[in-house]
Amino acid sequence: MPDDPDLSMPDAPKIDVDLLSDLMDRVSTFGSTGDGGVNRPVLTDAHRDARDWFRSEVTARGYDVSVDAIGNLFARIDLAGPDAPVVMIGSHLDSQPFGGRFDGAYGVVGALTVIESWRRLIEDTAWMPRCNYVIADWMNEEGARFQPSLLGSSVYAGALELDWALDRRDRDGLSVGDELRRIGYKGTDTAPKADLYLEVHVEGDAKMETAGARIAPFLRHWGALKVRIEVTGEQNHTGPTPMEDRKDALLGAAYIIAEVKRLSETATDTLYTSVARVDVSPNSPNIVPGKAVLFTELRAPEAAMLEWSEAALRAALPGLAAKAGVTADIVSVDRRPAGRFDGRLVALAERSADAFGYPRMQLDTIGGHDAVAVNDIMPSIVIAVPSVNGVIHRNDEFTSLEDLAAGANVLLDMVRRIEMAGGALDKTVEATP
Amino acid sequence: MPDDPDLSMPDAPKIDVDLLSDLMDRVSTFGSTGDGGVNRPVLTDAHRDARDWFRSEVTARGYDVSVDAIGNLFARIDLAGPDAPVVMIGSHLDSQPFGGRFDGAYGVVGALTVIESWRRLIEDTAWMPRCNYVIADWMNEEGARFQPSLLGSSVYAGALELDWALDRRDRDGLSVGDELRRIGYKGTDTAPKADLYLEVHVEGDAKMETAGARIAPFLRHWGALKVRIEVTGEQNHTGPTPMEDRKDALLGAAYIIAEVKRLSETATDTLYTSVARVDVSPNSPNIVPGKAVLFTELRAPEAAMLEWSEAALRAALPGLAAKAGVTADIVSVDRRPAGRFDGRLVALAERSADAFGYPRMQLDTIGGHDAVAVNDIMPSIVIAVPSVNGVIHRNDEFTSLEDLAAGANVLLDMVRRIEMAGGALDKTVEATP
Repeated sequence: MPDDPDLSMPDAPKIDVDLLSDLMDRVSTFGSTGDGGVNRPVLTDAHRDARDWFRSEVTARGYDVSVDAIGNLFARIDLAGPDAPVVMIGSHLDSQPFGGRFDGAYGVVGALTVIESWRRLIEDTAWMPRCNYVIADWMNEEGARFQPSLLGSSVYAGALELDWALDRRDRDGLSVGDELRRIGYKGTDTAPKADLYLEVHVEGDAKMETAGARIAPFLRHWGALKVRIEVTGEQNHTGPTPMEDRKDALLGAAYIIAEVKRLSETATDTLYTSVARVDVSPNSPNIVPGKAVLFTELRAPEAAMLEWSEAALRAALPGLAAKAGVTADIVSVDRRPAGRFDGRLVALAERSADAFGYPRMQLDTIGGHDAVAVNDIMPSIVIAVPSVNGVIHRNDEFTSLEDLAAGANVLLDMVRRIEMAGGALDKTVEATP
Repeated sequence: MPDDPDLSMPDAPKIDVDLLSDLMDRVSTFGSTGDGGVNRPVLTDAHRDARDWFRSEVTARGYDVSVDAIGNLFARIDLAGPDAPVVMIGSHLDSQPFGGRFDGAYGVVGALTVIESWRRLIEDTAWMPRCNYVIADWMNEEGARFQPSLLGSSVYAGALELDWALDRRDRDGLSVGDELRRIGYKGTDTAPKADLYLEVHVEGDAKMETAGARIAPFLRHWGALKVRIEVTGEQNHTGPTPMEDRKDALLGAAYIIAEVKRLSETATDTLYTSVARVDVSPNSPNIVPGKAVLFTELRAPEAAMLEWSEAALRAALPGLAAKAGVTADIVSVDRRPAGRFDGRLVALAERSADAFGYPRMQLDTIGGHDAVAVNDIMPSIVIAVPSVNGVIHRNDEFTSLEDLAAGANVLLDMVRRIEMAGGALDKTVEATP
């Protein structure tokens, strides 16, 4: 071990852009829709193929692969011996139905690029590694096919029960457990522990683009209530049934959808609301709908506003239902509390961004990210890079290679600083002034 | 010919109840589901078997059978020579999938019962018949397998093109023409002409039961506009997208659904409205819906009200859409015009009902009947009898033999009165005061 290993370590090292570009191109082939997007919902064949490919990539590079009971895929590389701190970097390979190719996949192939770049970097130096690394590919971040989202990372973090998670079902009645078995990702390995968690992700909004920023650590994660409302009316013919005798579940649903929107307008602090899915039964043009299930979301950065919105919704439902002659019941509420990411990691990310001269800003994340779940059990951060026009979850989701590389560069420089502090977050500032 | 044949003709003659009962029992065996219902969709083997049976019944009684190019089955009996007026009586032998045994079949076997009862009646008198009779079994009244409904009667009436009708396809891609050939009912005969059309049918609602009526002629057939509205927003994540940037197609749809209901409340005359089906895309809990297609129906007994409602809907759409930041376009309108059955036939039916002392009322029909199509080319009427609890299109559809007989008695007495007026509708009242 040299006396002063720091001297041989370059400041602001850069990742291997060709590797990042190549990995992005190849991961985008799985579930490719041919128009720039990917259709790779969790536990489909396309998702399995992407994971199989990723697994072969990391195995070929000497990583140990493990799969835990909820189907999270981990690739661990030991560089510093069994007792060294563990840095976990990751995201997810599942996509929204007909979503974009960067969301999630960038974080996974970015993690591999960062660690591989780190390995090459230290090959050229006398640096003695002080940390080990794990890449995480979380199962079901998106939550489009199975609810809730962040399923794998939430089980990992102990926030959700394994058996309950395995029993989540899609609209065809298939369970997470059965589908994991079908695609060969019902693992039996113990998930690796880690000391801190890093993630790069494309932004889901145009705030960075508007501000001209290339790097944005997330400060807060908004809380979310995902409320399922069941509206029950009476199935009947639209022809002969007199208007006054109808109990139209879709009409009741319409009143509720309008009210959910109104809540966001009457709130005294920031509140985002939506009803983005409605399952109508029988959904036939000439049968008065007997049932409608609404998938409602209430999101806010502050816990108090979430509480207010839930109370307001509950208070409004009976009157809205009565207006349509139906009943409306809240059948489930998934709660994601509002919170903050680790302030030391935010400061470290800003320091790294500045080292490259990247314009930066601070953001909250409103959507879920696996880092939100993992943040409960270890210091976590998400570094966002811009998405053109703020588009994600669509085929025209796009981030330039330069911006993808910028995010990975920041991650690599954070790794360098963490290594120089011996994996101790509190010492990162003094170790890399 | 006797000087005064009327003297030998009894008032309010009654049909042969045993014949009606026997025919109902036997027709109910075709496609029987064993629980009181029948599953006899048009052009299935069960439908063919019912037609084959009916054909043998009428042939054995001396009727001439013909089948026209759209597969309508006619049974004609000449009682009064080639130039006499023709009275057509009929309905349909096809059923809804897993429907009831009375809907349609009652009208066909009722027609045979009435004409056979009339033949026996005049055998006992010196009456010289003045009309000939045709029983019609219309092809595809129900419209469940092939759309639109009233297909055979609409081709007969000239409202639909033969070739277009033959090319209608079921969800397996099979065409009406092919299926007619397969079951042996692709006829080549010229359809018989007639001077007026009578039909008995079970009610599709509980209005008669509620009112204690046993007989109800239909006065009007309601018109219907089936309007498909496409709402276009912008697909986006429900998390990060600021509320003011959202273009939520489902929110726009909700405003429209509420307005469609409101139209029925603000209308100055009877108007039934519904949105019974909505297809939301992508219908994912956390993606702002980019598209919603609404299947809207506007139904009214009066053409002017239908016009008003369509204009009001068209006028409201842009504002409702703008409120949600989306656009809303009417992409198709299917129109079934409103109309009236022949007033002379209504009056005649009421006179006949009174002759038996049957409690009666007047009804409109909101759903379609073959008489609606045929009414375009000749005076037509439907006489309804009650259906227990207003149930039709289900296995528990039920009408007592007494009520079935009451409807057929009224038809027989109408035949008597029409005969006494020499087939001239305008003279029925003076001929049978």
